[in-house]
Formats: sequence, C-alpha cells, structure tokens
Amino acid sequence: MDARAKDDIYNQAIKWIREAGDLIRESIGEPLMIDTKSNPNDLVTQMDKNTEKFFVERIKQKYPSHSLISEEGFGDSLQNMDGTVWIIDPIDGTMNFVHQKRNFAISIGIYKNGVGEIGLIYDVMDDILYTAKRDEGAYKNGEKLPLLENKQLKESIFALNSFWTCENNKVNHKKMQDLVRRVRGTRSYGSAALEFAYLAEGMLDGYVTMKLSPWDIAAGVILVNEVGGKTTKADGKPLDFLQDNTILSSNANIHEEVYRNYIELK
Amino acid sequence: MDARAKDDIYNQAIKWIREAGDLIRESIGEPLMIDTKSNPNDLVTQMDKNTEKFFVERIKQKYPSHSLISEEGFGDSLQNMDGTVWIIDPIDGTMNFVHQKRNFAISIGIYKNGVGEIGLIYDVMDDILYTAKRDEGAYKNGEKLPLLENKQLKESIFALNSFWTCENNKVNHKKMQDLVRRVRGTRSYGSAALEFAYLAEGMLDGYVTMKLSPWDIAAGVILVNEVGGKTTKADGKPLDFLQDNTILSSNANIHEEVYRNYIELK
Repeated sequence: MDARAKDDIYNQAIKWIREAGDLIRESIGEPLMIDTKSNPNDLVTQMDKNTEKFFVERIKQKYPSHSLISEEGFGDSLQNMDGTVWIIDPIDGTMNFVHQKRNFAISIGIYKNGVGEIGLIYDVMDDILYTAKRDEGAYKNGEKLPLLENKQLKESIFALNSFWTCENNKVNHKKMQDLVRRVRGTRSYGSAALEFAYLAEGMLDGYVTMKLSPWDIAAGVILVNEVGGKTTKADGKPLDFLQDNTILSSNANIHEEVYRNYIELK
Repeated sequence: MDARAKDDIYNQAIKWIREAGDLIRESIGEPLMIDTKSNPNDLVTQMDKNTEKFFVERIKQKYPSHSLISEEGFGDSLQNMDGTVWIIDPIDGTMNFVHQKRNFAISIGIYKNGVGEIGLIYDVMDDILYTAKRDEGAYKNGEKLPLLENKQLKESIFALNSFWTCENNKVNHKKMQDLVRRVRGTRSYGSAALEFAYLAEGMLDGYVTMKLSPWDIAAGVILVNEVGGKTTKADGKPLDFLQDNTILSSNANIHEEVYRNYIELK
C-alpha cells in the first residue's frame, strides 16, 4: 500500500470510527432490540447491525474496489485476501455491550494482499482510540506505545477466560490450568479487541483463547505487532483471516514457551 | 450511628479518599518502590504504605475513639468489632496497580458495632467514586444506582478468577467448572473492591472467590447490600470481619442456588 493511499484510508477510517462511536454513545440509553442468535452468549443487537451498515455503506461508496469482511453479514464473501480488505467488528464485546453498556469496542483492520496495514480499536464509552500503521508503531489516543517488556512467564498477566480451564472440546484444559498456575495472574475482560489493545499497551503480557473470528482479531494483531508482540494460532501456526482461529498473542519472549508447554489443541 | 455523626464521618471520609486519590494520580508516573512479600502475587508498594499512613494519621487525629483495620499493618489489632471501626484497603488490586497503573481502588468500609454503615470505593485512575450509607442506597459519582435485576443464573455474568476452576485447596474446582458452564459468562478484573462495585452497578450479577481479607470486602458488601444484593461466605454462612473469608456476592435471586449447587468448600 503506498504511503499516500494509506494515509488517506487511515484518516478516513478514524473519522468514521469516531462518528460511529458518537452514534453508539448517543443511543446507548435507549431500549435495545436484542435478538438471540444460536445461543444466549451470542447476543445481537440492532445497534450492532446499524453500526455495521454505517461502515459498509461508506466504504462501498468511497472505496468501491475494496472488499469487506464483517460480523453481521453485510460485507463480502471472500475466497482470498487479495486487494484491500477491511475487516470490521462493529461491536466487539457484545455481551459487555448488553450487560455492562461499556467495555466494548469497534474494531477495524485493513489488509492489503493479506498484510495488515492499519489497525484501529475504539473503546467507545471510555473514548480511547488505539491506532497502528504497519512499521509506524502503535498509539493510544495519539500517544506512542512503548515496545512490550519481555517479561518472563512467571511475571506475566494473561487474559484467559476461565472457560478454557474447564473441560472443553478445543484444548487440553489441564495444560491450561498449568498455565494459570504458572503465570502471575489472569484477567478476563470479555472483549477480544480490548484484550489485544490492553496487551499492546502493556497491561497484559499474553492473551489465549480458542475461537475468534477474523473481525475479532484483525485490528488487534496489527497493534500487537507494532509493539513487538507476536500473534499466531494457539499452537504457534500462522493465522488465517478467512477462518476462525485459536489465538495466542503475547510478548515475543514467552510466545514459544507458552504454545510448546501449555497449549495442546484437540 | 446517629444520622449527624454518620454524615460528618461520611463527608470526612469522602474528602480524604479524594485527597489520597489525588496523591496517587500525581505520583503514579514515578518509579515505584516494589517490595515482594511472601510471594510474587503479593506486591507491596511504597504507595500502598504511604496511602495507608495517610488515612491512619488523619483518622487517629480526628476520631481518636475509632478503631482501624487495614492491610499494611499500621492499624489496630482488634478482638471484636465494638465501636466505630474503619476497615481500609489503601490500594485494592495491587497487581493491577503495578502492572496496569489502573483498575485499582481505595476501599473504605465504616462499621458501628459490626454493622456496615458507610462504604466507599474509589476507582482512582477513572475518577469514579462509589458511595453507600446503610438504608440510603448506593451511588456512582453521585448518581443513585438502581436495585439489582434478579436475573436467572443462566443469564448472569460472574466475576470469577480462573484459578478457582483449577485444582486448589479451597474449593471443589469441578463444581466451580459447572458454574462457569452454567452462567452466561465470566469476567476477572483483579480488584475485589472494583468487582463488588461492578456488581453493585449491575455490570456483574455475581462474584465468587475463595480468600479475601476484611479490607477487600468491607466497603463492597455495603454497596451490594444497598442495591438489594447478598454477600456471605461462599457456603452461605455469615461473614466475619476479623478474619479472611470465602466470598459469594450476587443478586438475591441466585444466591442460595449458587452456594447450594456449585460451592463445595474443602
């Protein structure tokens, strides 16, 4: 992506993400139209859909050659990552959105031929915008984030939902329990985008989870890259942005140690 | 506690908690004097100690007849809860304080003859003050919090650290895993005081943990009481403010169901 086109897209995406956030903040007090998709954990709100449409309409009009992958299905059905692809989660952390009315984010990752170029995560209620351009560092509200400290595992705080320490069909839960005992502490915030952002800003040292869609991770991996962190599937293999992935994201120092010693996928 | 004395103490405590918060915010950028007590999870900072001294000095001077229980040991060693007792955690969520520089709180509970009269939890970095007086409701930055919704367990979000779903010497971890599977979701924020506060404001529906000191819970139980929630030991028995406790705090509707079906203490 040439620098000028990248800057134009970056500035446009920031303008839109802030506008979308304003709309959400204005209407968050109103009663929500809550649908329940396949299971009660999968709450879908009208605002989710409206926010997605907000982006789809604007992107299709301004950048008709770009493609778009997004959660609610108004985007494209892609077979590959050729060209410029926006990967959008209009509201990441839907359960937080519904139950807490905070701790959710808009997530936008923009890829060129499969390479992450721009990552934006907007914590809507706290009005905190995380931004990153490839090779230009990551920022929190315009302030450059330092490179991650290469802490050891025993000094690390991991984002890890307790679900993965219970018997499940994705991962050996006993090894996950070993990880919990090994690290200094665990946290769980309920929004993948924010968990990536917290990792990028050094509040967390690692993040492990067993099922995320492309829109949950697209922006976050770019942010984490820009502060020297690594993100792969939970077993260390490369990510695939056209499918769901297991995820291990962490500082570079502990990444291999975690997937070799603590992750055994089923 | 008569109403006038209570108002005086309440107003004084709010003044002090805000002053202490200001001092912490001013100095949080400075290098910390980090001690490690018995284990690395138990990080003690100079600021923790300074903040405790800040309260001890002021309380002893202004209210010489009052007693004080607090984390760092500058308080009194009490055999009972007679009279007016301040129970203070100068920095609740020390690990967050050290690793995240946010998501920690000052917690003050004030008890008269064992009855919780005043609860204050101050989220220092977000400048959010939760307050409660017995029988007068709970407030977040001066705005009254509604009574908790009596959600069912399957609709509930629980604060629960993944540690308790791993084999441990406090509780049957398999039953805890059943609880994780039963609820809609779990979160873990790393500050007991904030977890009580989030419960009081309806962001969470329950909070379970296996070892908290009196200063971790003293303010929180008052806040939760004032929005109609219940807090007991994790097996449903009454709390003892002179000892560590296991904790189950939740909306009143699910409280008994949780301790009867999901908590088996060792």
